[in-house]
Amino acid sequence: MKCAVCRGPAVIDLRRHNANFCADHFLKFCRDQVVRAIDDHAMIGLGDKVVVAVSGGKDSLALWDVLVDLGYDAEGMTIGLGIGDYSAASTEAAVAFAEGRGLTLHRVDLREDYDYDIPTASAVTNRVPCSSCGMSKRHLIDKAALDGGYDVVATGHNLDDEAAVLFGNVLHWHTEYLGRQQPTLAERVGRAGSGDGRRVFPRKVKPLVRLAERETAAYCVLRGIDYIVEECPMAEGNRHLRYKEALNAVEAASPGAKQAFYFGFLDRAASRFAPDADGADEELPACGRCGSPTTGDVCAFCRLVERVAGREPVPVELVRPRRGGARRRQARTKARS
Amino acid sequence: MKCAVCRGPAVIDLRRHNANFCADHFLKFCRDQVVRAIDDHAMIGLGDKVVVAVSGGKDSLALWDVLVDLGYDAEGMTIGLGIGDYSAASTEAAVAFAEGRGLTLHRVDLREDYDYDIPTASAVTNRVPCSSCGMSKRHLIDKAALDGGYDVVATGHNLDDEAAVLFGNVLHWHTEYLGRQQPTLAERVGRAGSGDGRRVFPRKVKPLVRLAERETAAYCVLRGIDYIVEECPMAEGNRHLRYKEALNAVEAASPGAKQAFYFGFLDRAASRFAPDADGADEELPACGRCGSPTTGDVCAFCRLVERVAGREPVPVELVRPRRGGARRRQARTKARS
Repeated sequence: MKCAVCRGPAVIDLRRHNANFCADHFLKFCRDQVVRAIDDHAMIGLGDKVVVAVSGGKDSLALWDVLVDLGYDAEGMTIGLGIGDYSAASTEAAVAFAEGRGLTLHRVDLREDYDYDIPTASAVTNRVPCSSCGMSKRHLIDKAALDGGYDVVATGHNLDDEAAVLFGNVLHWHTEYLGRQQPTLAERVGRAGSGDGRRVFPRKVKPLVRLAERETAAYCVLRGIDYIVEECPMAEGNRHLRYKEALNAVEAASPGAKQAFYFGFLDRAASRFAPDADGADEELPACGRCGSPTTGDVCAFCRLVERVAGREPVPVELVRPRRGGARRRQARTKARS
Repeated sequence: MKCAVCRGPAVIDLRRHNANFCADHFLKFCRDQVVRAIDDHAMIGLGDKVVVAVSGGKDSLALWDVLVDLGYDAEGMTIGLGIGDYSAASTEAAVAFAEGRGLTLHRVDLREDYDYDIPTASAVTNRVPCSSCGMSKRHLIDKAALDGGYDVVATGHNLDDEAAVLFGNVLHWHTEYLGRQQPTLAERVGRAGSGDGRRVFPRKVKPLVRLAERETAAYCVLRGIDYIVEECPMAEGNRHLRYKEALNAVEAASPGAKQAFYFGFLDRAASRFAPDADGADEELPACGRCGSPTTGDVCAFCRLVERVAGREPVPVELVRPRRGGARRRQARTKARS
């Protein structure tokens, strides 16, 4: 197995590119893919201040590493989710990475700063943990970007993530989500009062959309980045992982299928689901508590905090989904709502 | 396990409907689903003459049986494809069904009538067999419908078929195919000279789209219909079957996922891919040989016949795809085209 570039011994084969690479040319391949994603989708401009959403996993650490390597002004932000040992180890990996490279890492901790954690939120709301987790992370990273004057939020979503999300959106024909599934979401301005008073959502970009998760893992190994290998114990058995498995079966038989699926969508289908230009420019009202844009009086984050803050912490083991448990809990929740 | 209707002993459980049925109420369920599909999608009008494309498998025989049972004027047509024992047994099942019920079955045989068969066509053109097979069947059923004065062609595509085709079209974002994937395709008129001189494509309908293939099989068993159980030996390992497997995995975890995928598409997405109304009305030129509508001078069917008719028959075993063989052959064909 020889490197497609230098014919030296290869360390990885990329079936969908029908190519093998040595360590150096694989790292270059990864950087080139990020550069191309940034260019193709107008992700980061010259002199932009970037904040990277860092979980401590392979994707976010690889992303931060590549962005710094490419010369971007990229700081990190990590959120302590309170998911037992998993969260502790994740934060540790993020801190170690930042300290080892002298990078700035901003930290928020749900329990310390808002008096709740994800297992407790899941138990109290009786919803799958991924629901309050995703919403909390989106709210806090948006807030950090606006408060801190960052131009853009970068997240580590890779090709497998985006293809699986797209598959889920297509399976249910969530046309509204399909209209928003883009590698770059433009910032939005409005009358809500958060941040600098005009921007209500920061620009959000996914520079790893051209890399598969096997590739970001290999990138970290070759760069000597210690990342947390475990998947979140609360996500076990969730739909997203099932969609990944179904697409993995297709990809195994037809290498490149995921890439064709995701980029074919962007090229030939996404615009058919684009929201009305009118609707997109509409000014969102501000949350009465925190000033974030919301469709109601109080935003979903403030409502969650109000409901779960200060409640007796529930250990992760008690809400960890058993086999089939997540589905059953979701089914019950849906029937009630 | 009790019947959801009469509380008698159930013989089948339908997870996606969260219901079990006894034999009688399951047969009623199947008929009701066909009636609803016909109504919802304006498939067959009062007094329409129907021709059913009959393969001898569970779907086409169940379809013919239900349509006759519902009082439709439905004759059958079957095509001898020359795929060894499989085709012989398929034709036998179709003939036995028609004779047992005193129904009219029209027969075409590729080798007798056009001097080729599918294995030979596949070997000579060096393409996957499903390619010449699908095209030949479409051409001959259209021709039979126009020549015979039938108002509508009914095919046995079931929910699993349509969901798998949709998955394939979505994976590749074949927007043109997505624009045409409908349970009812309206007839088209034009200047091509086939049939009655005005209609160039007959109306085509899929009345089984609300039934899964497990259900059409159960229908046949309960109605005492002898159908050919084997899958086509030449289709083994093809993409369509892989897409079915991927969706089966999703369906197993989320019963109803396929139905939501397919009908959600029809409800909320299909119109976004609809062809230009202008283009659809455009008059297609007629094939110089057979008068069928075509985009070139000679239609694809006449070109295939010209290329393969009279060639030494190739036995099915010689072109039967080995594991992975279909994919490799297709890859080569693509690279060449």
